Amino acid sequence: MADNKVLLDHGSGGKISHSMISEIILPLFDNPILAMLDDGATLDIPSDKIAFSTDTYVVEPIFFPGGNIGDLAVNGTVNDVAMCGAKPLYISVGLIIEEGLPIKDLEIILKTMADAGRKAGINIVTGDTKVVPRGKADKIFINTSGIGIIPDNINVTGANARPGDKIILSGTIADHGITVLSAREDLKMNSDIKTDSAPLNHMVKAIIDSGKKIHVLRDPTRGGLGTTLNEIARQSNVEIKIQEKAIPVKNAVAGMCELLGFDPLYIANEGKLIAFVPPEHADHVLETIKKDEFGKHACIIGQVMPEDSDPENKGRVYMETLIGGTRIVDMLTGEQLPRIC
Amino acid sequence: MADNKVLLDHGSGGKISHSMISEIILPLFDNPILAMLDDGATLDIPSDKIAFSTDTYVVEPIFFPGGNIGDLAVNGTVNDVAMCGAKPLYISVGLIIEEGLPIKDLEIILKTMADAGRKAGINIVTGDTKVVPRGKADKIFINTSGIGIIPDNINVTGANARPGDKIILSGTIADHGITVLSAREDLKMNSDIKTDSAPLNHMVKAIIDSGKKIHVLRDPTRGGLGTTLNEIARQSNVEIKIQEKAIPVKNAVAGMCELLGFDPLYIANEGKLIAFVPPEHADHVLETIKKDEFGKHACIIGQVMPEDSDPENKGRVYMETLIGGTRIVDMLTGEQLPRIC
Repeated sequence: MADNKVLLDHGSGGKISHSMISEIILPLFDNPILAMLDDGATLDIPSDKIAFSTDTYVVEPIFFPGGNIGDLAVNGTVNDVAMCGAKPLYISVGLIIEEGLPIKDLEIILKTMADAGRKAGINIVTGDTKVVPRGKADKIFINTSGIGIIPDNINVTGANARPGDKIILSGTIADHGITVLSAREDLKMNSDIKTDSAPLNHMVKAIIDSGKKIHVLRDPTRGGLGTTLNEIARQSNVEIKIQEKAIPVKNAVAGMCELLGFDPLYIANEGKLIAFVPPEHADHVLETIKKDEFGKHACIIGQVMPEDSDPENKGRVYMETLIGGTRIVDMLTGEQLPRIC
Repeated sequence: MADNKVLLDHGSGGKISHSMISEIILPLFDNPILAMLDDGATLDIPSDKIAFSTDTYVVEPIFFPGGNIGDLAVNGTVNDVAMCGAKPLYISVGLIIEEGLPIKDLEIILKTMADAGRKAGINIVTGDTKVVPRGKADKIFINTSGIGIIPDNINVTGANARPGDKIILSGTIADHGITVLSAREDLKMNSDIKTDSAPLNHMVKAIIDSGKKIHVLRDPTRGGLGTTLNEIARQSNVEIKIQEKAIPVKNAVAGMCELLGFDPLYIANEGKLIAFVPPEHADHVLETIKKDEFGKHACIIGQVMPEDSDPENKGRVYMETLIGGTRIVDMLTGEQLPRIC
């Protein structure tokens, strides 16, 4: 590319768009489906049931310790598809680029996306690029949509939590949100603080292949663990109780939360899942998760309360605090951290 | 909604996000799949082959004669899926909203999307909303991704054009681009000038159901008819010749093009398709298209030249001009009209 910044022309659909696609995008996302360059991709789907998910990424800054907006966008949608109990196969990429973005930055982001795709084992099969004038967007926004196939007899919707279920969390919380916030504010950071952005589809496959019953799978991203547990409590109309001392938070992350006045329960994660599992299967599923590269610090953090608990508590989340009290964990009110993903 | 502007909080993933989703979005896009509110949608797909497409809409202004960014985003992706020869079934919606957008505008746009979805016969099954601070986006950007099922034995990729094929255009060109440009510049407009944004999936179904052989289907959106024909000429490695006098342009649109110095061949359309059809089937397919609500002005505009044409001309598009000459129709160079879709 002769010029070193993205121009409005790159999004025109004309000659310069085509040269960007053929010179930068196709070589990186190399696969025969995308290379067809039709208006859409034609895909073989060996299943009657698929999962379909979309997410738009507007994180600021676009580069941060441990990753950038590119792998965040791939992993995020891979995980959303996986949380339907599906095996993610294909994703689409929609770029909105602000005129003036250095081509070098775009190349790094796209390369990171291609690498993340390979790591997750999915193909980027269709895409779209728009360029808007300076000041009409902020560097780059990325939408990814994903498709995966759902095995027979798998149903892990948030409405399936049942009394007695154990709640497994796959690792430490608040890493991603605190990383982005610290990078944005240019705070001096401990090297332990980096995004947890990771593909969780291999972990989900291992859980499902183990044959143990799973009621709910969900990744606590925007809004954090607290919000996600509230969503499940409402969808399933159950009371959830978690134990504060069981929830792993890295020391450096906990310190930063304390310094800034944030509750890690509401800080976004990008490489963690929670699984609701019948008690008799919980230990086995926990061990399966721990064997995964991204699940080493998995643990049981709480349970769904018995059917005969107070009806007023249904749809609510409680936490036994470190000092022995119990408090309501409410849904996040208002904006804690904008543009975290 | 108490406040009358979109706030950063509306995109937080917390309480206010949830109230916007449950109060505004769910009632409009009412369907049981979306209402599950899981990370992704679970879909029944009665086919082994699907089409998958994505597009992001950044049109400016967001409201223009005949439509707004909402129906544009639904119709655009419905059409991209249909151009794979598929029956569109499901779409996702990813919103990026600039803080301060009037809630009233958002409601109008979402309602238009819901109406467009009903007209096309598809369901909006999964979505995502991000809000960015004032000045970091321009009012609203919308990504839609779509899934459709492809019937057996259908393959209408741009690489399938064959010598002798007749080229059918489903109606007048340049309506959408000239409408948006005129609205943006606040030009006094003839009431004949309005977007052609429309769902073409019913037309495609009729063509396919007719049982006649179709080689290529494509909608000439960004870059216009000229760019789309060039793409097909290259993908199929054939020479294309079109007749200028056969290409319908509304008088008001042609006048505006002349006034502003634009070539209608490169102006975006949002409700037109071109079909490459073996000559023996061309009249029948043309009649089928003319019966559709959006195909009344369909006509044959040219053909693919015979195999023995000059090899140097392969991959090129020529036009017999009104005054009897022949000129190359090149791919659009540079940005003619930014943010047209």
